[in-house]
Amino acid sequence: MDTEGQGLNSRIVATGMELLEGLAGEKPSVFERGRWAGRIIDWSLRNDEFRTRMLRFVDVFPSLSTPELLARHLREYFGDLDGQLPWPMERAMGAASAAGPLGIALISKAIRYSIEKLGSQFIVGDTAGKAMKRLARIRRDGCAFSIDILGEAVVSEEEADAYAAQYGTLIRDLEEAQKTWSPLASPGKGSSPLDWGYSPMVSISLKPSSLYSQMRPQNLQGSVRAVLRRLRPLCEQLIRAGAAMCIDMESYACKDISLEVYKALRGEYPNYGQLSMAVQAYLRETGNDLAGLLAWSGSVGLPIAVRLVKGAYWDYEVLKARQNGWTIPVYTNKAETDAAFERHARLVLQHHETAYLACGTHNIRSIAAALELAREMSVPPERYEFQVLYGMAEPVRRLLKSRVGRVRVYCPYGPIVPGMAYLVRRLLENTANQSFLRQMFSEQREPWLLLRDPLEAGGAGERQPGPEGKEKAPSARVCRPGGLSDAHPFTNQPQADFTSGEERRLFGEALAGVRQRLGRTYPLFINGVERSTPDTEASVNPADPAEVVGKLCQAGRKEADEAIGAALSAFRQWRDTDPAARAAYLLRAAAHLRSRRHELAAWQVLEIGKQWDQASADVGEAIDFLEYYARQMERLGRPRALPSPPGERNYSFYEPRGVAVVIAPWNFPLAISCGMVSAAIVTGNCVVYKPSPLTPVIGRHLVDAFKDALLPAGVFNYVPGRTEEIAEYLVDHPDVSTIAFTGSTEVGLRIIEKAASIRKGQSFVKRVICEMGGKNAIIIDEDADLDEAVPAVLSSAFGFQGQKCSSCSKVVVVESIYDAFVERLIGAAGSLAVGPAEDPAYSMGPVADEKARSRILKYIEIGQSEGKLLYQGTAPAGGNYVPLTILGEIEPHHRVAQEEIFGPVLVVMKAKTFEEALDAANSTRYALTGGVFSRSPGRLEEARRRFRVGNLYLNRQITGALVGRQPFGGFRLSGLGTKAGGEEYLLHFMDPRVVTENTARRGFVPEGDMEERRRGA
Amino acid sequence: MDTEGQGLNSRIVATGMELLEGLAGEKPSVFERGRWAGRIIDWSLRNDEFRTRMLRFVDVFPSLSTPELLARHLREYFGDLDGQLPWPMERAMGAASAAGPLGIALISKAIRYSIEKLGSQFIVGDTAGKAMKRLARIRRDGCAFSIDILGEAVVSEEEADAYAAQYGTLIRDLEEAQKTWSPLASPGKGSSPLDWGYSPMVSISLKPSSLYSQMRPQNLQGSVRAVLRRLRPLCEQLIRAGAAMCIDMESYACKDISLEVYKALRGEYPNYGQLSMAVQAYLRETGNDLAGLLAWSGSVGLPIAVRLVKGAYWDYEVLKARQNGWTIPVYTNKAETDAAFERHARLVLQHHETAYLACGTHNIRSIAAALELAREMSVPPERYEFQVLYGMAEPVRRLLKSRVGRVRVYCPYGPIVPGMAYLVRRLLENTANQSFLRQMFSEQREPWLLLRDPLEAGGAGERQPGPEGKEKAPSARVCRPGGLSDAHPFTNQPQADFTSGEERRLFGEALAGVRQRLGRTYPLFINGVERSTPDTEASVNPADPAEVVGKLCQAGRKEADEAIGAALSAFRQWRDTDPAARAAYLLRAAAHLRSRRHELAAWQVLEIGKQWDQASADVGEAIDFLEYYARQMERLGRPRALPSPPGERNYSFYEPRGVAVVIAPWNFPLAISCGMVSAAIVTGNCVVYKPSPLTPVIGRHLVDAFKDALLPAGVFNYVPGRTEEIAEYLVDHPDVSTIAFTGSTEVGLRIIEKAASIRKGQSFVKRVICEMGGKNAIIIDEDADLDEAVPAVLSSAFGFQGQKCSSCSKVVVVESIYDAFVERLIGAAGSLAVGPAEDPAYSMGPVADEKARSRILKYIEIGQSEGKLLYQGTAPAGGNYVPLTILGEIEPHHRVAQEEIFGPVLVVMKAKTFEEALDAANSTRYALTGGVFSRSPGRLEEARRRFRVGNLYLNRQITGALVGRQPFGGFRLSGLGTKAGGEEYLLHFMDPRVVTENTARRGFVPEGDMEERRRGA
Repeated sequence: MDTEGQGLNSRIVATGMELLEGLAGEKPSVFERGRWAGRIIDWSLRNDEFRTRMLRFVDVFPSLSTPELLARHLREYFGDLDGQLPWPMERAMGAASAAGPLGIALISKAIRYSIEKLGSQFIVGDTAGKAMKRLARIRRDGCAFSIDILGEAVVSEEEADAYAAQYGTLIRDLEEAQKTWSPLASPGKGSSPLDWGYSPMVSISLKPSSLYSQMRPQNLQGSVRAVLRRLRPLCEQLIRAGAAMCIDMESYACKDISLEVYKALRGEYPNYGQLSMAVQAYLRETGNDLAGLLAWSGSVGLPIAVRLVKGAYWDYEVLKARQNGWTIPVYTNKAETDAAFERHARLVLQHHETAYLACGTHNIRSIAAALELAREMSVPPERYEFQVLYGMAEPVRRLLKSRVGRVRVYCPYGPIVPGMAYLVRRLLENTANQSFLRQMFSEQREPWLLLRDPLEAGGAGERQPGPEGKEKAPSARVCRPGGLSDAHPFTNQPQADFTSGEERRLFGEALAGVRQRLGRTYPLFINGVERSTPDTEASVNPADPAEVVGKLCQAGRKEADEAIGAALSAFRQWRDTDPAARAAYLLRAAAHLRSRRHELAAWQVLEIGKQWDQASADVGEAIDFLEYYARQMERLGRPRALPSPPGERNYSFYEPRGVAVVIAPWNFPLAISCGMVSAAIVTGNCVVYKPSPLTPVIGRHLVDAFKDALLPAGVFNYVPGRTEEIAEYLVDHPDVSTIAFTGSTEVGLRIIEKAASIRKGQSFVKRVICEMGGKNAIIIDEDADLDEAVPAVLSSAFGFQGQKCSSCSKVVVVESIYDAFVERLIGAAGSLAVGPAEDPAYSMGPVADEKARSRILKYIEIGQSEGKLLYQGTAPAGGNYVPLTILGEIEPHHRVAQEEIFGPVLVVMKAKTFEEALDAANSTRYALTGGVFSRSPGRLEEARRRFRVGNLYLNRQITGALVGRQPFGGFRLSGLGTKAGGEEYLLHFMDPRVVTENTARRGFVPEGDMEERRRGA
Repeated sequence: MDTEGQGLNSRIVATGMELLEGLAGEKPSVFERGRWAGRIIDWSLRNDEFRTRMLRFVDVFPSLSTPELLARHLREYFGDLDGQLPWPMERAMGAASAAGPLGIALISKAIRYSIEKLGSQFIVGDTAGKAMKRLARIRRDGCAFSIDILGEAVVSEEEADAYAAQYGTLIRDLEEAQKTWSPLASPGKGSSPLDWGYSPMVSISLKPSSLYSQMRPQNLQGSVRAVLRRLRPLCEQLIRAGAAMCIDMESYACKDISLEVYKALRGEYPNYGQLSMAVQAYLRETGNDLAGLLAWSGSVGLPIAVRLVKGAYWDYEVLKARQNGWTIPVYTNKAETDAAFERHARLVLQHHETAYLACGTHNIRSIAAALELAREMSVPPERYEFQVLYGMAEPVRRLLKSRVGRVRVYCPYGPIVPGMAYLVRRLLENTANQSFLRQMFSEQREPWLLLRDPLEAGGAGERQPGPEGKEKAPSARVCRPGGLSDAHPFTNQPQADFTSGEERRLFGEALAGVRQRLGRTYPLFINGVERSTPDTEASVNPADPAEVVGKLCQAGRKEADEAIGAALSAFRQWRDTDPAARAAYLLRAAAHLRSRRHELAAWQVLEIGKQWDQASADVGEAIDFLEYYARQMERLGRPRALPSPPGERNYSFYEPRGVAVVIAPWNFPLAISCGMVSAAIVTGNCVVYKPSPLTPVIGRHLVDAFKDALLPAGVFNYVPGRTEEIAEYLVDHPDVSTIAFTGSTEVGLRIIEKAASIRKGQSFVKRVICEMGGKNAIIIDEDADLDEAVPAVLSSAFGFQGQKCSSCSKVVVVESIYDAFVERLIGAAGSLAVGPAEDPAYSMGPVADEKARSRILKYIEIGQSEGKLLYQGTAPAGGNYVPLTILGEIEPHHRVAQEEIFGPVLVVMKAKTFEEALDAANSTRYALTGGVFSRSPGRLEEARRRFRVGNLYLNRQITGALVGRQPFGGFRLSGLGTKAGGEEYLLHFMDPRVVTENTARRGFVPEGDMEERRRGA
C-alpha cells in the first residue's frame, strides 16, 4: 500500500469521524423500539428463529384474505414460540387461539394495520395520491427522489404491458405534479431551473425484467428486443417530461440483458443524457462491466450516468449458484464488496467529465470514501450525488443533506401485496449481522471498526478468480477420473450457465457442428466390435421430420442372441473385477461425456426437440449418474461388518446378478439410458442396451463413452432395434437375469408379468427395475405465492412439451384462489412461444413423433368433451407440434384427470378445501411426483404426510430431480419403489451375501477382541 | 480384613519370597531362546500378529500331509510377514517360495522336525515306549506323575470305544512297568511301599467327554450313564492295578456331568479312595460345587480327592458365552481366579481328614498360599501334593521337589495330531499377558507384584453374581418394552442354557403343561375378534400321529375376504401411526413371547418334532425378529436428510404398502412367521397371516402375543386354512399389495408368477418377499479340522431331521481327505440316536408328516440308484420317522445332488481339487447356504469370493443364522435376495418417498445454513 493510499485512507477516516459525529444521538426509525417496525426488528435481531418466522409471515401476509386464515397462520407460524414473542404479538397470539369469530376479525384488523404500518416505513405510498404527497415532502426537506413501482415478477406479457402502463400513468402524474414544485437549491451554486441546477426534478427507476415475462439469458438478444419494445415509449414520454430514468440492476441472470438494454437505449436517444444505469458492487464482474461501459461511452461519445449500489440479492445469488453448481457471482465477504464499491466509485469519478456518479449507500465509510475520492480528483460537485433508501436511514439522509447537499431518496411506490418482496428484502438487510446500519445504530460498534479500510478488513481485492472471473463455488468442484469417494465427494454437474456469453457461443457452435454430421449410418456394438446390418431405420428431427438425424442398423433376434452371449461371457471376468476398478470406468466415461457436453446436448435438440437448457440438463444428469453410481459402488463394494461376538466374524457384501437388459425411453435419452446402464455395469453386471427407436443416435454416444473409458469387451452392448422384434425377446431370454426399464406403465406391466415366469434353463428369478408413468398434480393452496406458483406450474407442465414422467399434468386449485390463479396461468401460458428447440427464443417445441401428436390431440378432444377448453395456443406448421392446451372444469373421475397424456396438456381442477385437493391429487393409480404451493406450515406438513407420491416438491416446480439430491421414482403403478440417483438404487442390481467365519481355533480367539486375557497359569 | 488374615498374607508373601529366591537364575525351557520352542515363544511375546498366525499354523500343521501342502500353507500364513519373522522361519519362507520340489521336501522335513520338537516339549511321548522311558525318568527325579491320553474330540461311539481301549492298554502297560519302579521317598517319613508312602505309583487322568460322543447338558442323566458304561471297566482295571485316577474337568458345559460321573463312580466303588476329581478355580460356580462335593462326601461317608487347577479353557468359555448370549461362567479378572484358588484350597484343606488336595499351579503366590494354609491348619503333609505340567515350568518343579517333596507331573501322552489342541493351549498359556510364568520368567516382574494378595490385586471375592451365580455378560442384557434403539441396542435373545438345572426343570414342566392342553379347538382371529367356523382340521404330533395337538377352525374364501377387508380398513390408521409407536407394539409382543419361551418351545416339540434346543432357538429367533425389526424401524422411521444446497431441503422416508399376506412354513413355525409378520406390521402394513397347516397351533400364539401387546384390531389377522382353498386366493386378491412367503421353490415361483399379473382394480404392482429352497453344500478341504468338521456336518445335515432350508444336503470332499472324513462321518452318524424330540436323549426325531416321509424315502431310493448307500440308520416305529441316510458316489448331475430333499439325507461327493469342489457346490439352481472347512487362508479367500451363496459359513455349521449377526436368505432359485434379520429387510415392505422443499422465500434462506451474511448495506 503506497503512502498516497495511506494518506487518502486517513482523510477518509477523518471525514468519516466527522460524519459520525454529525449522527450522534440520532437513530433511524427502523431501530426505534417505540414503533411497531422497530420493535419487530429489535426482536428479530435478538432471536434468529423469530426473525425467520417473522420474515416468512410478512411474506405470506398479503395473501391472508380472511380473518380465519390470518388467525390460523398466526398460530402455525408462532404458536410454539410462546414466551419468545414481543408483547404485542403475544397478545395477538393469545387472542387468535381463544377468541371467537368476532374477536378474530378484530385481531386480524389490528395485525393488518400493523403490517401495513411496517410496509409504510419503507414504501413511499400505496396510492398515487399518498405517494405524491410524500414526494413533495421529501423535496420540501431538500432532497431529490427517484421513484420505483413495486412488483417484480411478471409472469405474462399482459402483466408486462400492465406494468409498463403503470409507469406511463406515473410519469404523466409526475409531469403534472412537478409543475407545482420549486427547484431544489444547488449547493454552492445558487438556484437553477432544475434540481441542484443540473438534474431533472422527476426521476424514475425501472427494472427491465418487469417489462418482459420471458427473460432468459440463453435468449439474450430476444430478451433485449422485448424489453426495448416496451421501454421506448416510456423513454420518449420521459424525454417529453424532462425527467430522468435509471435502469435498475436486478439478479445476476438479467445483468447482461440490462446492460445491453441500457446501451441500446442510450444509443437510440443520444441526446437523452438523463439515462443512468445501476451497477452492483457485490458482483465480481462489475469491475469489468463498468470498465466496458465507460469504454463504450468513450468510443460512442455518449456521456453516461451510473448508479453505484452494493447489491440487494446476495442470499438469492448465492443460493441460486449453489443450487445449480455455478461459481458464486457475488463476493462472499462483505469487506470485498465495500472495497469494490470504493474501487468502482474511483473509476467513475475518474471519468467524471463524461460519467455522472450516483453513490447509493448508507455506509458512512463508503460515503466518506466517495467524498474524499471526489475531492482528491477535484470532481465538481454537480458530477456526483448520494442516494439513500426511503425509510431506511433518516439520520444519514439528513447528514448528507446538511453536509453534502446532493441527496436523492430512492422511493418504492405501490400497494403492499406486490411490494412484499421489497419489504422482506429491506427487513432482511436491517437485521443482517453484516448490515452497516445494524452495526452502527443497533450494535453501536466502535467508530474505528466501522470506518476501517475494507482492504484491511479482509476485502483485499479480488481473490483468485475462477475461469469466468467468479469465485469457484464448492459445489462446482469437478472430480477427476480415478477419484475416490472420500477424497472427492459427489457433486452434481453444474447446470449450463447461459449467462455466460462463452457458453452461449459454444452451444451455438455445437449445434452447427452436429448439423453437419446428420444423416450418418450407425452400426451395432456387440462384444467390443462394431457390427453392421443391412437393415436400417432412420431417426428424424421432430421439428422437421424430413430431416434425418441418423440411420441405425437394426438388431434382430440373431444379434440379440449374440449380444446376450457376449454379455454372459464377459460376466465371468467382470463380476470378479474389483468394485473400485469398475467405478473407475464410470468416472472415465463421465469425463468423456463432460468433454462433449455441448455436443451431446445439441444432438438432443435435433433428435428429440429438447430446448437448450433441457438438453444440457439431460447431459448433466447422465454425467451425474456416472459420478454418483461410481461413488456409491465404492461404498457398497466394501464389505460391511455385521455385529460379531468374539470368535466369530460376520460381514456382508453384494454380488452382481448376470446379464442385464436395459430398455430405455426417448424422453431423457442420454440421462436415463446412462443411469440404468451405468448402475448395471458398476455393480458387475453386463449390459445389453436397447435405446429408444426415437433417440438411437443419442444412445449411440454411450458406446463412444464406454469405448473411451476402455470398458472390457462384452460388458456393454448396444443393440438398437424394432421394439416389436427384439424387446420381448430380450425380456423373455432365459440368460437375462435383470431388466431395467423406463417407459410407459402399459409396457412396464407387461415386462413385469413376462419376467415373472421361469423359462426352461433359467436358474434365477428375474429382477425388474421399472420406472413407469405418472399423473402428477400440483396443488395451489389459498395462500400460495402466485408469483412463484404460476411460472413453476408452467415449467412443470410444459417444459419439454410435458413429455417427462415427472411433468405436471393437473393442477388442483383451492376454490378461493382459483380465479386469480387461472387468470394469471392463462396469461402466462399465452406468453410462451412455440417453435423449434434450436432457437432459444422458444419455450416449447415439437412432441416426439406423429404417433405422440395424434395421441395427445385425441386426449385434448376427450378433455374438451369432459370439461372445457380454458386456453389453447397455436402450433407451428411443419413439425410434430401440438398446441399448448389448458383444460378446465375437470373432475377427478374424468379420463384426462386419470390417464397419462404425456404432452403439453394441463388440466385444472377446483377443490373446495385443501383436504379435497389432496384427495383429488392422490386419486389416480399413479404415485410419481406432486407439488404443493402453500405458505401454511400446517398444510405443508399435511402434504408431506398425505400427498403420497415418490417425489413431492413443496413451493417449486416438480420436474428436474437431481441425482443425489432428489432420488427419483414412484410407486403404485408408477414404479417399483426404486429410486434412481439414490443410495439404494444399486442394491436392486445385486444380491446380498453374508459370510460368517468361525475365527476361533481350539478355543483360541485371534482377533484380540477378547478382553485382556486373565486366565490362571 | 482381619489381622489374622493380614498375618497369613505376610507369611504367604514371606514364603513366596523364599521360593522365588530358590528359583533365582533358573528359566523354564520354554523361555530359553536357544531352543526352537523358546525362540517361537519369545517371538510371539513380542508380536501379536505373529503369535496368532503361529498358533494357527501349529494347529493346522498335523494335517499338512505333503511337502507341497506345507509349503503353500507356510506362504499363506507368513508370506506377508517378511522381516517380522524369527530367523529360522525367514529362511524356511525364502526357501518355500524359491525352492524346487526337492528343496520343498527338505524344508518340509525340517519344519516337521521343529514342530515335533515343539510338541515334545509338552508331551511326554508320542509312543508308549518313549512315554514309559520319560515317566521312569520323572520318577527317578523324585516326582510322581499322572498320565493323560491326548485327543479330546470323539465324534462317534466307535471313537469313544477306541479311546477307552487306549486307556485299557496304557493301564496294562503301566501295571507292568511299575513292577520295575522303586517307590519314591516319603519326605519326613522314610520310605513306604507306595509313593510318598500313601499314594499309588501309577496315576492316570481322564476326560469324561472322550468316553461319550453325544454328551449334551440337556441329556445329563443319559450322558452320565453313557460315560459310566465305559468308565467302569477302566476303573476296575485300575483298582486291580492299584493305580489312581483323576476325572478331569473340561469345558463348563460338561462340568455337571463330570461331577455326577465322579459321585456315581465314587459311590459304586466305595473302597477305591484313589479316585479324584478336578475342579477349576476360574469357574464362578466352583465355590458352590466344591462345597456341595465336600458335603456329599460327608453325608455318604466317602473320602474324596480334589485336583484344584486354575482352568485352561478361558478363551473358549468366554467366547461361547458371548456367542450364545449367556452369562460368562468364568472370572474375567485373573486376580479373581487366583483369589478363588486360595479360597478353594483353604476349603479342601479344612476338610483334610476326608479330602485330599492336589494343588495344580505354577504360580508361586498360589503355591505359597497353599503351603501356609496347610501349615496354619496343621494339615499333615500326606494330605496334599503339588502338581505341575510336563514341560512347562521345570524350575518350579525342581523347587517344589526340593522344598516340599510331593510334586506330581501331569503328563500328556500320545501322537502329535490329536495332541495339537493341547499344544496350542499350552502355547497360548505361555504367551498370555496374564501368565504367571510369562510375568515371572520372561518379563521378570517385581517380586512384590507377583506375590501380592490377589484380593488386593482386584480379585475382591465374588462380584455381584447373576441369577445363576454367573456374571452377567453384556450380550445377555434384556431390553424392556418401550426401549429405544439408541439406549438399548439390539442383542440376541440368549440361547437356552441347559447346563442350568433350573432351565432343564422348567423345560420339562413346560412340556408336561403343554401336554395337558393338547386337543383344544382354536378359532380364527379377524379384526380383533375370535371367529369360529364349523369346519376344523386337526394338527398332530409327528412322533405319534394319533396324538392331536389342536383342532383349527378353517378359513374359507369368505373369511379370507373378511380378513383382507379388516386389514384394509385398519391400514388407514395404522400407516399414519408413528413408526416408533409401531415399534413399541413389537417390543411388547417380544416381552410376551419371552415370558412364555419354554412353553412356546414345548409346543414345537410336540407339534412338529423339534428337539429341545432347536425349539428353544426358534422361540429365541422369534423374539429376536421382534426386537430387531422394532429397532430397525425406529431407525428407518426417521426421515433421512439428503444432500441439499442452501434454500432447498431434501429428505427421504418410507411409506407402507397396504395389506400384506404372510404365508408361513412349518419348519420354523414361530420364528419365520413372527419375522415376516412383524416386519410387515412394524413398517405400517396390515397383515393376513396364514400359518402352515402343519403348525397352526404354534402360529396361533402370535395372536396371543399381539393381543397382549394391544395391537389395534385388524392390523394382524390369523386365518389358518387349507392351502388349496385360500393360499392362491389370497395371493391373487387385488387388495393385497405385498406377499411374504417362505417355503418351497415350487410354490414360491408360482406365487411370484401369479403376483405379477395386475388384476382389475389393482393400482400397484404386488411385491413378493420370498425365501425358497436350497441345496446346500459343505466343502471339506484337505487340511480341514475333522474334529470340528464332522460334528458340524452332522448337525447341519441332521439337526431337526435336515428340515431347514439352510440344512446341509451335500458334502463335497477333496479327494486326499475323503476316506478319513467319510470314515469318521459314518461313525459319528451311527452314534446319533433317533426318537421322539420330547426325550433329550435323541439327536433326531420324526419328519413333518407322512407326505414328507414318503417324498424323502423316494429320494433315498433315487439316490441308491444313482450312487451307493454309505450309511443308513434305523427308524423307530410309530411316528413319521425316516432313517438317517448317507449316500456316496454321487456326481454333480445326479438328482440327489441337484434337488432339495428336505430330510435326513446327506450325499457325499468326491472332488479332485478344491476348485472342483467349489464348482460342484455352486452347480445347482439354488444359492442359499454353504460351508467350507479349511485352514488355508488362500482357500478361505477363494471361497469367500467364489462360493456364491446367500450365507456362507467358514469352519462352522451352516445352520442357526442369528438375527442381526447373520442376515439370512439366498438368491438364484433360493430367494429374491432379501435378507431376513438384516438391515435392509424392512425396506422390502415399504416404498421410499422423497420430499424436496424450496425453503427460500423472496430469495431469503432461513436455515442459517448460508455462510455469514455479507451483503452490502
